[in-house]
Amino acid sequence: MSDKVLLDYGSGGRASQRLVSELFLKHFDNPELDRLNDAACLNLQGPVAMSTDSFTVDPIFFPGGDIGQLAVHGTVNDVAMLGAEPQYLTCGYIIEEGLPMADLERVVASMGQAARHAGVYIVTGDTKVVPRGTVDKIFINTTGVGRIVADPMPSGERAAPGDAVLLSGTMGDHGLTILGTREGLSFEAKVQSDCASLNHLLLKLVRELPDVHVLRDPTRGGLATTLNEIAISSKAGMEIEETAIPVRPEVAGGCSVLGLDPLYLANEGKFICIVPEKDAEKALEIMRADALGHDACRIGSVTAENPGKVSLVTPLGGKRLLNMLEGEQLPRIC
Amino acid sequence: MSDKVLLDYGSGGRASQRLVSELFLKHFDNPELDRLNDAACLNLQGPVAMSTDSFTVDPIFFPGGDIGQLAVHGTVNDVAMLGAEPQYLTCGYIIEEGLPMADLERVVASMGQAARHAGVYIVTGDTKVVPRGTVDKIFINTTGVGRIVADPMPSGERAAPGDAVLLSGTMGDHGLTILGTREGLSFEAKVQSDCASLNHLLLKLVRELPDVHVLRDPTRGGLATTLNEIAISSKAGMEIEETAIPVRPEVAGGCSVLGLDPLYLANEGKFICIVPEKDAEKALEIMRADALGHDACRIGSVTAENPGKVSLVTPLGGKRLLNMLEGEQLPRIC
Repeated sequence: MSDKVLLDYGSGGRASQRLVSELFLKHFDNPELDRLNDAACLNLQGPVAMSTDSFTVDPIFFPGGDIGQLAVHGTVNDVAMLGAEPQYLTCGYIIEEGLPMADLERVVASMGQAARHAGVYIVTGDTKVVPRGTVDKIFINTTGVGRIVADPMPSGERAAPGDAVLLSGTMGDHGLTILGTREGLSFEAKVQSDCASLNHLLLKLVRELPDVHVLRDPTRGGLATTLNEIAISSKAGMEIEETAIPVRPEVAGGCSVLGLDPLYLANEGKFICIVPEKDAEKALEIMRADALGHDACRIGSVTAENPGKVSLVTPLGGKRLLNMLEGEQLPRIC
Repeated sequence: MSDKVLLDYGSGGRASQRLVSELFLKHFDNPELDRLNDAACLNLQGPVAMSTDSFTVDPIFFPGGDIGQLAVHGTVNDVAMLGAEPQYLTCGYIIEEGLPMADLERVVASMGQAARHAGVYIVTGDTKVVPRGTVDKIFINTTGVGRIVADPMPSGERAAPGDAVLLSGTMGDHGLTILGTREGLSFEAKVQSDCASLNHLLLKLVRELPDVHVLRDPTRGGLATTLNEIAISSKAGMEIEETAIPVRPEVAGGCSVLGLDPLYLANEGKFICIVPEKDAEKALEIMRADALGHDACRIGSVTAENPGKVSLVTPLGGKRLLNMLEGEQLPRIC
């Protein structure tokens, strides 16, 4: 194969086949993909969660991750947020003609490794190569399916007054890393993306606590936007303690220099968990026992007052409304 | 909403929500999508087919179709080729900042209509807006799932010596249309894309004929490439009568002027059907009774000789090898 990605590799002909067999099959190896039919045949039973996400992150390599593993983590997490066990992923690559083959291989290898780590099979895919200038380097779509384990299923509309609002870890790491890398900023301390597949931890949680009300990952739009979405869907209010929200000092520092608010920055390895008050301690215990939930903490409660609104209790005891993100803070964050 | 697509619409915040509710929900309306969770919850039983495809066609509007309906047809067809009933689609939009909102609405409306016509629900989606110049107008990924009806399942490796090779209609219409439109060529007669969802016809076929060996749509790479793929997977040969392959005179004319071979051009509403000799007549009858299979015909047979190779019997009775497409004939055809 050439050391650059050629248009030929997306033709559907022999050159495409070589790309698939020498690159994708090598890194994604599993029995279903190996059949190379136009569609994969899966065995699924009962209620199934399905989610899709396109990844356009710029740059494609960043501290703590790359677009390949991000494409696995993002979709695995979206499926898992329904209390489901992600089983199968599809992947669609759109590649710019001329991309160094070494970059593509690095992305594909990283994606294969992330899939093995999450315990999902990449069962079918599609590769398009488009002329120079019609896409920026590489965009990846992943779609995931998996059986729903939790019953009842956690869902954005199930937050109930009195529930505890828990957060699995620090906010803003991914968003600040992408912005910093893109703009060539050097932070004094090392800031890196938190991107990770949360499915193993989430499954443990819904298996041990059968009544988790809401699971949601604060990605684009950040914690503030996601909490508002839940408040609106659940027709309930929320009261969040500002000082309880964990933010790494180096992230807080970077944000304050750049005028960014970490509550609006994307996270790619964190989740919000809303449970009945009686289950809060147990949920925190399960989360903290896992490396991906080590900094888990309670950040507030669901209230009957102010349905659809999120109030932030400030360090001095005042209260202010925490609004949803209005427009775009940072494009191409994921 | 603005008359142009803004970066804000892909932010994950309030502007994104407006785009989703005022555009996507309006045209894709169905109970599962309306829940707006990060993932959809589906009820699937038993063996399920899953397929993904990214669409980058240029231009996004062309005679006979547009990128929105093509994104439905393409994935519906790939799922149906396993003898499955496509039920649910996801869609991932990547949109260039500044795209006229009217163009986006036209694409989304067309996609919604194609989905209703095919009888599939678009159950979950994702929208990214990327800065001007980082994608050309609009790319769409669709991923589809549906229960497999045929047992045994048609598959690329099941062509057996003695089987009849059938084709549902004319070759080259889509590929020549895209090339002609892109290059601003005017053909004397109207050439238009054949893009269509074949699932209703394919389901009728596998329900009435329980032993269809292979179903495959000759998209990128065209008929020649797809026949070669089947020959290789099935470890069988094929003998195809060149004069039996239907090509519209206006497509043949356009190809001869441009130096293109219709056997290597993409089709988006046609399929190859390989059945035991005894079922050939019945299969043709079912195909011809449907508007999408009106021109169905037998083009050849599977042979024990020359495994992995496709021979073309020329009008003068000679034989030549029909090779797979090597590189790229036309980029961004789908």
